[in-house]
Amino acid sequence: MTRWPLPEPMALALQEAQAAADSGEVPIGAVIVKDGRVIATGRNAPRERHDPTSHAEIEAIRAAARLLGNERLEGCELWVTLEPCAMCAGAIAHARIGRVYYAASDPKGGAVEHGARVFEHPQCLHRPEVYAGIGEAQAAQMLRGFFQAKR
Amino acid sequence: MTRWPLPEPMALALQEAQAAADSGEVPIGAVIVKDGRVIATGRNAPRERHDPTSHAEIEAIRAAARLLGNERLEGCELWVTLEPCAMCAGAIAHARIGRVYYAASDPKGGAVEHGARVFEHPQCLHRPEVYAGIGEAQAAQMLRGFFQAKR
Repeated sequence: MTRWPLPEPMALALQEAQAAADSGEVPIGAVIVKDGRVIATGRNAPRERHDPTSHAEIEAIRAAARLLGNERLEGCELWVTLEPCAMCAGAIAHARIGRVYYAASDPKGGAVEHGARVFEHPQCLHRPEVYAGIGEAQAAQMLRGFFQAKR
Repeated sequence: MTRWPLPEPMALALQEAQAAADSGEVPIGAVIVKDGRVIATGRNAPRERHDPTSHAEIEAIRAAARLLGNERLEGCELWVTLEPCAMCAGAIAHARIGRVYYAASDPKGGAVEHGARVFEHPQCLHRPEVYAGIGEAQAAQMLRGFFQAKR
C-alpha cells in the first residue's frame, strides 16, 4: 500500500497502463529513466500490434535502446506496474538495466519473485537491483477492474 | 552429432546464424514453420539493430505474428540453432508455439534445460514440446569459430 505521493515515473507507468486498458489490452505500463529523466515509455499491446513480445517492458526497452543508439541501457532504471514475466526479466538482464521498480507482484505469471526467478540463476548474466511495491494498490486495482469488466 | 541430412528448417536456421556471424553478431538463427512451410526467419542482431531483444527467436516470432496478423502462433514450430534464453523461452510461451527444435544446448545462458527452466514452472502458461540436438555439431562449431576469431 502506498501512503505517499507516487514517484513520477510510477505515476507515468500507471498512465501508460490506463492507456493500454483503454485500447482493450491488459493494463500494464512501463517507463525507462536515465539520469533522473524519463527517456522512454511503453504499454502492453500484443493484440493491437499483433506481437506476442509487445509487453510494456519490452516496448519501453526497445524505445530507449533505439533512442540511445545502444543495445545496452547501462545506468537506466525501469519502472513497471506489474512484476515482470520471464520474457521481460530476460530482456531487462540483456539490456543491463541497473534498477527495476515494480508495483504489483504477479503470482500467476511473474518470474522475479515467483516461478522461474530469472535473476537468481548463474545463467542470468546481469542482475539488476529490484524494488517492489511502490504503486501496488493502484496497479492491482486497475488490473482487477479490467478483468472484472471483461466478464 | 547429426549423422543424417539436416531437416530443411534447421539447415535454414544455420544459414541465418551464418548471416549473423557475417555481420559481426553472435551466430544464432531461427525459423518458424507452419503446416510444413517456412513462414518466417530471424537472426541475432542486437548490435546492428540497437535492440537488446533482437535475438533470432524474437525476430522470427515477431515476423511470423506480423505475417499472420495474430499474436498467437498456434500450430507453429520454432527451429533455432541454440537453446533459448529466458527472454526467448518466455516469448515462445506467449506466442503459444507448439514445438521447439533447438540444435546446441547452452549451459551458460540457456533457460530450457538449464538455469531458469522457464517451461517447467506453473507461471509458464503454455509449454511447447521440445526437441534438442538436431544440428548440434554444426551450430556449436559455428559458435566456437566465431568466439575464437574474436580473440
